[in-house]
Amino acid sequence: MSALQELKVIDRELSILNGISALLGWDKETILPPQAVTDRGEHLSYISKTIHEKLTSPHLFKIIQSLSKQKLSAIDTAIVKKYHREITKARKIPTKHVEEFARLTTHSYDAWVRARKEKKFSIFAPYLHKVIEMRKKEATYINPKEHPYNVLLDQFEEGMTIDELDPVFLQLKDELPRLIKAIQQSPRYKNQKPCLGTLSFPLEGQQKANLDVATFILGKNERTHIGTSPHPFMTRISFDDVRLSTAVREGQPLFSFTSVAHESGHALYELGISPKIKDTILCTGASTALHESQSRLWENQVCSSKHFWKYYYSHYQKIFPSLQETSFDEFYFQSNLVEPSLIRIESDEATYCLHIIIRYELERALLEGKIKIQDLPKLWNAKYQEYLGVTPKNDAEGVLQDVHWSDGSMGYFPTYAIGTIYSAMLYRVMLEKHNIKKDLDHGDPQFIKDWLQKNIHQHGSMYLA
Amino acid sequence: MSALQELKVIDRELSILNGISALLGWDKETILPPQAVTDRGEHLSYISKTIHEKLTSPHLFKIIQSLSKQKLSAIDTAIVKKYHREITKARKIPTKHVEEFARLTTHSYDAWVRARKEKKFSIFAPYLHKVIEMRKKEATYINPKEHPYNVLLDQFEEGMTIDELDPVFLQLKDELPRLIKAIQQSPRYKNQKPCLGTLSFPLEGQQKANLDVATFILGKNERTHIGTSPHPFMTRISFDDVRLSTAVREGQPLFSFTSVAHESGHALYELGISPKIKDTILCTGASTALHESQSRLWENQVCSSKHFWKYYYSHYQKIFPSLQETSFDEFYFQSNLVEPSLIRIESDEATYCLHIIIRYELERALLEGKIKIQDLPKLWNAKYQEYLGVTPKNDAEGVLQDVHWSDGSMGYFPTYAIGTIYSAMLYRVMLEKHNIKKDLDHGDPQFIKDWLQKNIHQHGSMYLA
Repeated sequence: MSALQELKVIDRELSILNGISALLGWDKETILPPQAVTDRGEHLSYISKTIHEKLTSPHLFKIIQSLSKQKLSAIDTAIVKKYHREITKARKIPTKHVEEFARLTTHSYDAWVRARKEKKFSIFAPYLHKVIEMRKKEATYINPKEHPYNVLLDQFEEGMTIDELDPVFLQLKDELPRLIKAIQQSPRYKNQKPCLGTLSFPLEGQQKANLDVATFILGKNERTHIGTSPHPFMTRISFDDVRLSTAVREGQPLFSFTSVAHESGHALYELGISPKIKDTILCTGASTALHESQSRLWENQVCSSKHFWKYYYSHYQKIFPSLQETSFDEFYFQSNLVEPSLIRIESDEATYCLHIIIRYELERALLEGKIKIQDLPKLWNAKYQEYLGVTPKNDAEGVLQDVHWSDGSMGYFPTYAIGTIYSAMLYRVMLEKHNIKKDLDHGDPQFIKDWLQKNIHQHGSMYLA
Repeated sequence: MSALQELKVIDRELSILNGISALLGWDKETILPPQAVTDRGEHLSYISKTIHEKLTSPHLFKIIQSLSKQKLSAIDTAIVKKYHREITKARKIPTKHVEEFARLTTHSYDAWVRARKEKKFSIFAPYLHKVIEMRKKEATYINPKEHPYNVLLDQFEEGMTIDELDPVFLQLKDELPRLIKAIQQSPRYKNQKPCLGTLSFPLEGQQKANLDVATFILGKNERTHIGTSPHPFMTRISFDDVRLSTAVREGQPLFSFTSVAHESGHALYELGISPKIKDTILCTGASTALHESQSRLWENQVCSSKHFWKYYYSHYQKIFPSLQETSFDEFYFQSNLVEPSLIRIESDEATYCLHIIIRYELERALLEGKIKIQDLPKLWNAKYQEYLGVTPKNDAEGVLQDVHWSDGSMGYFPTYAIGTIYSAMLYRVMLEKHNIKKDLDHGDPQFIKDWLQKNIHQHGSMYLA
């Protein structure tokens, strides 16, 4: 076998192992029996270890080094380049560390679930402590000379640094509160009356609307499955198996609706990747923030727009007869209400980035050792008061609301804000090309889908974000 | 590391890989997006190949050979013995064959689903042909001197042969039709009127009753999950993750009820295995027929008994108010109605073994090359007419009704009959020890559970069936 053929065999194996790992994760968050959490940790840890061993084997390194010097097709060149970057990083982390970290995060996820249920940060704190310590160690393994936050951020958004991020976040911290204040002082805002909170939105109807929005974005297809879990997410298990999970909540019909729009945006990206790079390391989104731009675009720019609702509101009223008395304008403005609140994933476009900045500042300070784990709830609450003017009543609606720290995703939150910015940039370009608003009035997302597929999705991670 | 320590590492790895394979299978039959069948085949095939390679590695063989000569604990001796038997067999089958077979059965399962849907055996026939050919080849790899049916049968019920089976089946073929005739000529049988067929049994209520019977057998526990699939089944994913799947059918409330009792019986076996042999090759049922005896015991001896229903019928009537007018006697006799019918998994105790014998005779003749694949529907229908006096209207209710040939389980059907016989034997012993009937009148299955756990479940496959 030539070096290239050998690479293709290993590449396919890693694609399968990553898919299996994704299935173990999907199943864990959707239907795993509670007592099996430890067993599942062992399974996940075993697969992580196997992937890490394959990725860091001297044999693969030799293959990649030899192929780096050869003239290859554009796709193969991109594959070799990506492996080169990943292997160089991965070879610095001991297999034992990877295995231990996978086991730890299974337990810390479990602790987070319990802690959130009992609204007690102290249940989660010792696990978070270990997660932070292991992440710090990992950053030192990869690059002891670099700021640890930059090393972790680079894993999600290659090349991004705190020096680039800080001025952007500083500007947001300056301008967003003023924008929010201006909205809140407008006559329309002051005169509106709440019209959704008291109405009935049966869960069955919510599931129906969820299916509508998923079909609107993804079309009718046999490559997806929709499940339920405490925290909505999307995952790729194989080329033709891209799943989303949603959480349905009594009395909050737009929560699951927008989260399905969000996760469907992620899924559309994965489903749109060209079959030419199927089962290769390139067969996934180019970066976390670019992925987030795809979900935010459908959640905010498209499915919260006046134009989309012009088309969809009459269907929505049929699903929920309780809305018969609510006019389109009342509904539209209520559904886009700007209001500083406690929960990130329920927050509006105007306040969203402030939620992210709070997390960024806290996780960075944790990694820098400037704050202590046990002070986290207090510091969290103080920042919410300072930036958003609200204070959590308990840890569940405060520091425990997000799953991400439990799985060790430090350096990940900023990509939500970066993705939100990307999505606005992309949508602006599309609007210049075509009268999208008119299409949406008629419930037609085809131009958007085609444009994204052509310019972003098909390429997977052939190019950097 | 000592040879024993090395064995324990490999044993645990194989346990994890088998669990992953089970999860891939579970997911395939419950929620996999239709278009992902090929991808999933690749995943399953990769894991099968990995398991086969590990099991047949010269290194493991050397370890087992060396440990076979050492004095070990009872458990370790049993582990070494079981590996010795499995490896000796597995080393005879080329890895490529195993991998190819896993891929084939994924496709043949898919073809079977489509064929059954379209009621067309011809869609499934070419796949069944390949499955038979590969199974024949496998039997030749393992033991070219033995009758191929014996080689395959031995994989499910170690030591069982057609010579032992034939006289038992001959006796059943002789006595069962006479028993059925005697029942059908009894005055009670002639005078009963159908009382269930026309009533309403909403699916939601069926799910509630399913949960009742699962809880009756398994108790409240956090080690199981109940899903839905076209064909009910049970699977072990890890020590604390044993799942069952059921199919709910409009107008057939007892179908899902008895199938949940059946699969719960299987699950109770797996859940009752001692933690002392957790994650070892012994941590599973001792044989397919012994496993089947555990499911049949709960399905037939317990949950179809007059005593169980004495306790449960008033609850059942509350779930289904349509039964208010149906007396206990009417319900009990109707629910145990003996009636020759077309579908094995819906058939009664008296006719069940005849369904098995038909399959046994046909699959044996296929392996012996005495009949042709394309004649199978005709031959199937003729045997149903001969043994049971009924004829399928189409292939879906005839030759295509069972999933098992699609996954290559030839030599497997007889274990259903053997298990049914075992279950009657076990129940008879229990009845001699304790007044079980009185317990069941009060809805108390504890004696049965304890007896089975002590005498069968805890041992896993420490001993042969």
